[in-house]
Amino acid sequence: MTAPRPAPAAESPVFDIPSLRALFRPRSIAIVGASNDPSRIGGRIVAGNIEGGFGGDIFPVNPQRDIVQGLRCYPSVAAIGQAPDLAIVAVPAAGVVAAVRQSAEAGARAAVVLSSGFAEAGPEGAAMQREMVAIARGAGMRLMGPNCMGFLDARAGLVASFTRINNVESAFSGVTILSQSGAVGAHFSHVMRTRRMRYDFWGSTGNQADIDFADCLAWLAETGEAKVVVGCLEGVGDGQKFIAALERACERRLPVVLCKIGRSEIGGEAASTHTAALAGSSQVFDEVLRRHGVHNAVGVEEALDIAYGCSAGKFPARASLGLASTSGGFGVMMADAAAEEGLDVPALPEAAQRRLKEIVPFAGTRNPVDMTGQYLNDESIVRPMVEALFAEGGHAAAICYVGGSGTMPSLAAQFEAVVQAFPDRLLALVIVGFPEVAARLERAGCLVFEDPRRAVRAVAALVAFGRTFAMPAFTRASLPAPVSPAGRGTLAEVASKAVLAQAGVPVVADALVTSSRDAAAAAARLGFPVVLKVVSPDIPHKSDIGGVALGVESVEAAAAAYDSIMARVSAAAPAARIDGVFVSPQVGDAVEMILGTVRDEVFGPTVLLGFGGVFAEILSDTVLRLAPVSPDEARDMFAALKGASLLNGARGRAPADVDALAQAVSALSGFAAANAGWLASVDVNPLLVRPRGQGVVAVDALVVADGEEGRP
Amino acid sequence: MTAPRPAPAAESPVFDIPSLRALFRPRSIAIVGASNDPSRIGGRIVAGNIEGGFGGDIFPVNPQRDIVQGLRCYPSVAAIGQAPDLAIVAVPAAGVVAAVRQSAEAGARAAVVLSSGFAEAGPEGAAMQREMVAIARGAGMRLMGPNCMGFLDARAGLVASFTRINNVESAFSGVTILSQSGAVGAHFSHVMRTRRMRYDFWGSTGNQADIDFADCLAWLAETGEAKVVVGCLEGVGDGQKFIAALERACERRLPVVLCKIGRSEIGGEAASTHTAALAGSSQVFDEVLRRHGVHNAVGVEEALDIAYGCSAGKFPARASLGLASTSGGFGVMMADAAAEEGLDVPALPEAAQRRLKEIVPFAGTRNPVDMTGQYLNDESIVRPMVEALFAEGGHAAAICYVGGSGTMPSLAAQFEAVVQAFPDRLLALVIVGFPEVAARLERAGCLVFEDPRRAVRAVAALVAFGRTFAMPAFTRASLPAPVSPAGRGTLAEVASKAVLAQAGVPVVADALVTSSRDAAAAAARLGFPVVLKVVSPDIPHKSDIGGVALGVESVEAAAAAYDSIMARVSAAAPAARIDGVFVSPQVGDAVEMILGTVRDEVFGPTVLLGFGGVFAEILSDTVLRLAPVSPDEARDMFAALKGASLLNGARGRAPADVDALAQAVSALSGFAAANAGWLASVDVNPLLVRPRGQGVVAVDALVVADGEEGRP
Repeated sequence: MTAPRPAPAAESPVFDIPSLRALFRPRSIAIVGASNDPSRIGGRIVAGNIEGGFGGDIFPVNPQRDIVQGLRCYPSVAAIGQAPDLAIVAVPAAGVVAAVRQSAEAGARAAVVLSSGFAEAGPEGAAMQREMVAIARGAGMRLMGPNCMGFLDARAGLVASFTRINNVESAFSGVTILSQSGAVGAHFSHVMRTRRMRYDFWGSTGNQADIDFADCLAWLAETGEAKVVVGCLEGVGDGQKFIAALERACERRLPVVLCKIGRSEIGGEAASTHTAALAGSSQVFDEVLRRHGVHNAVGVEEALDIAYGCSAGKFPARASLGLASTSGGFGVMMADAAAEEGLDVPALPEAAQRRLKEIVPFAGTRNPVDMTGQYLNDESIVRPMVEALFAEGGHAAAICYVGGSGTMPSLAAQFEAVVQAFPDRLLALVIVGFPEVAARLERAGCLVFEDPRRAVRAVAALVAFGRTFAMPAFTRASLPAPVSPAGRGTLAEVASKAVLAQAGVPVVADALVTSSRDAAAAAARLGFPVVLKVVSPDIPHKSDIGGVALGVESVEAAAAAYDSIMARVSAAAPAARIDGVFVSPQVGDAVEMILGTVRDEVFGPTVLLGFGGVFAEILSDTVLRLAPVSPDEARDMFAALKGASLLNGARGRAPADVDALAQAVSALSGFAAANAGWLASVDVNPLLVRPRGQGVVAVDALVVADGEEGRP
Repeated sequence: MTAPRPAPAAESPVFDIPSLRALFRPRSIAIVGASNDPSRIGGRIVAGNIEGGFGGDIFPVNPQRDIVQGLRCYPSVAAIGQAPDLAIVAVPAAGVVAAVRQSAEAGARAAVVLSSGFAEAGPEGAAMQREMVAIARGAGMRLMGPNCMGFLDARAGLVASFTRINNVESAFSGVTILSQSGAVGAHFSHVMRTRRMRYDFWGSTGNQADIDFADCLAWLAETGEAKVVVGCLEGVGDGQKFIAALERACERRLPVVLCKIGRSEIGGEAASTHTAALAGSSQVFDEVLRRHGVHNAVGVEEALDIAYGCSAGKFPARASLGLASTSGGFGVMMADAAAEEGLDVPALPEAAQRRLKEIVPFAGTRNPVDMTGQYLNDESIVRPMVEALFAEGGHAAAICYVGGSGTMPSLAAQFEAVVQAFPDRLLALVIVGFPEVAARLERAGCLVFEDPRRAVRAVAALVAFGRTFAMPAFTRASLPAPVSPAGRGTLAEVASKAVLAQAGVPVVADALVTSSRDAAAAAARLGFPVVLKVVSPDIPHKSDIGGVALGVESVEAAAAAYDSIMARVSAAAPAARIDGVFVSPQVGDAVEMILGTVRDEVFGPTVLLGFGGVFAEILSDTVLRLAPVSPDEARDMFAALKGASLLNGARGRAPADVDALAQAVSALSGFAAANAGWLASVDVNPLLVRPRGQGVVAVDALVVADGEEGRP
């Protein structure tokens, strides 16, 4: 990802930050359904806020009690006598709409509905959900849930959830958990307990009737307090809103780590029965995450490893890594892992290597540095060995394996000294079985992992964030003026090619002829050799029945080819409607590509590029990007194709005209973005890329239009 | 891996099992360098065996003491008065050769040398190492080490190492750690402590001067006591011995899980400075592991997850998986992971789904089964939900996510009941944060993981072992009679093609001509169209200078083509030696492939197959197998190629003659195995695969011979 990142040209959705502040930073909370019994949900919330030390006003609401857990209890929200910022609704489904209404009427600015039994439970529940959203919107009250586990703010001691703040002591703060599924979010927090990690904020969005994942993410980016957002997502309803939230996070240098679940066929089926969310194309979703520098984690463990790494707040922007180890084997293992993660492990300068050899003659000094068992005799060798990676190696990040050595407690001072000397560098250690030493080193600012491979993977992710954050800001692409569609449905070949020309993609010159004489004249005009191809809406595979003639070299041959095509076609497909025959110049030496656009139902227009022939048919090797892409981003697209070297003059060819290709891809993508209102898809196959300086030319195209206007 | 597995045709190395028994099951041990101080190495070993309760005789040897740690101490091994089975040598490097000599002379049958400072330390150390091996071999004494951490037998309480038995209580036994690097082996045992795993045996082979990884593995396969061998390997010196050990393990249904380190370029460099081992080709090493069903783990965590899974001793042979979850999100996540691991998650039968809906109306019943939060109200729903996966789903393996639920302690009984009802099935649970419940469930026979993705990966590996173990035994391929080489070095094209023909690979008919008249006559004889190609040792790229003519259709054209080739070549390369021109029939419709053999310096002859054209040049898409392969295994090879569908009639072609292709691959691989003594490599490019029934034909070939005899 080296090209500047154009953002979608559509106007960005506006997040209502003040209303989110009332939700997440309330000065007062009403707990509707408050109970005196802390084992019941309505009691657990009251107890949680008292224990948490929430500093705002707590108003229990329950018509059957005067006092709840020592606090004055009100018969209704209105009876409180002041509008609470936040109403937490913890009553059974049947009473929820009434509770939302009384909260709204009393002037609450936000509500969390924990109860389930709504859209996820069937049509009746969906109707109740619609009603509560209408009430909330009518009153200008934001709504989180229903069917969610709410949220916890561990710093404020605020519990808007029936789960507890279950943090442990940790050296690092700033981790935020945000999960559509409450159960998955809870799993994250359980695993964090076992790993010396704490969260500052924990939220689950459930049915997302009003506030969704994107709102929460935009809020977290706005506050600037989270060091990392880690979460799980099953689907996105509003693609543009999701993208806008990711852009904000990216601009604020807030790393986002997401597990997207439902990627596989069975998983996707299970997800769609489990939630009502639109899936969108998985390939497009992956592209949305890639473009915004989100780490797309394959599972919980990976997500938390990386969130843990982010909580140290250091994001090296160079992909080079220093490695040191007390055992040669682990140096090798980490070097292997670095290669797999795309990190370089360059050698230390010769002078530094000589200096390290003076300290330990048998040491491996290249990088990985093998400190050997010598540290068991003299711990003071560790600091200079590791520091060499920073001082002389110049690395922004280093990993040191120390393993399960019994000397760990006293070795810790060596690493503390390194961090003090190089406070801006990232130092990760691999240690097994010394939790108290690990905690001490974390307090010093080191990351501590148990597994060398996971350490390397996490550092690689931090480097990826560093590179994303170092990129220029998103720029709004200027789009061409929208045009009107030339028809509706699948456009004919002539109309499709006209659309391509409008889009700025060069189209092969051709003439539609209906006689052998006209064929000969057209051929003479266009220049030899020419190609002839029958035009018929009823003949899909024209070459199979002899409807195509290639390499026609003369006027006479063109006339003859016309006649023989007509004869073969009328024999093979006597009932087919024949519009005539296309005559076009035969394009010589060229790389065959396919180029297209597809409007994703969630994320909008996308552009696709791939090589033709076996690459397309056997390997499905294509790259997809959100439209529009700049010419530079188009270059990144073809660099990402497996067959990329075909464009560079592989197999004895002349290098292809990549400038013209980048221009064509960018132009078509801008056209697709400008005309997303009616342009469902474009399929250019083949797009011929000629040698440098000779441009590209679309030979065949198929456009599908499904709307009337130039803009959605 | 569906084809029967031919084993290498070479005779299998013989492992000297009785001598390994003296090493690993000694009735008596001498500790040379015994110390009274348990903090010193020679003292730690004595203390370890006393504490471990080793049942054999322990003879401390130290000329300066009469009693060591309460045991009678001897001035020399000879002074013991009886030959110990095993001598453990823990003296500084300078005294090691003498200690080995006195052990050998006293009749010890095996020795472990823990000391370092030998081959790994330079030429002087290497000389001492050679000397100690010569002494040991001369006396028929086996030798482990030097520069190793020895071994531990936790069941026998035997400590032949300066490290301790550091096991924890565990429900499962039978894990064996075997590592070339002692530090990596120690890391494995440290991590196992944190994961409720214990080892029965722990061994490190160090410099492998006599006993190597393969010897140890063969011994472990022989005893049949290990349930799994897990370890780390940097390199293999004797490929045939390693293969023979893997075969034994496979035949004894002993799963082997290995981390091969040094796979990357930097990692490989680091490994070669760290040990003296030959690397061999990484692709060949991967193939050796694949063929023998070894799990090739990418890191320590993966290796131990799978070793843990193996310790339950259940290896399902079908790749179908039942999934259940208390949260829909985790069902989706596990289904995604199953798809990535190649496991099917088929739907439960309709009747079973109806039955489950009766138990929980909102449950997801397809598979994954979503039990929903209903289990919090009624735990008894869990057992029937999970049992349905075994009873009606018929799965041999199921994974159930329960997460960090506070109800875990009482839920455990549900899972215990499932295991009692289905004792032969594999049940894995995902639980966070209840170590005592996890231990209880492990005692019941469940596997317990913390991470859903790691659970799925481990089960997938157990399935892979199950499939390997279900395969027919290795069969010795019968090889063709060896032949003598036609020359030495890179053979000329005519000689190379003759070798191919000897090997049983059809070669295109051709004639070498030296006049236009002969060219015309040869063309007439061979049948039109023909191809003409200049033959010269000095012109590598013949078509670049006009040295090739394709599609020659007549006698006259053949004569003319000969003359124009000669004219073009003498203009472009006037100094080149010209042997003449090949005339050969032009092969029509065919799939272009490349076929070759390479003799790996460690593992011997291999065979390679790939598609030609862009597949070879751009994608490097080739499959490698150890030679020989049967025709069935050859079919597996082409099925594993990315372009496999090209052979099945993709792109409108006729299906290719895969029978003839399988035959040719098998024949060449057998020839390469039979003639490994002189055949360094064969490169057939292209091998044309014609439509079914029309066979294959090699158009060009290059053979490299580097020896004199038919057999190595």
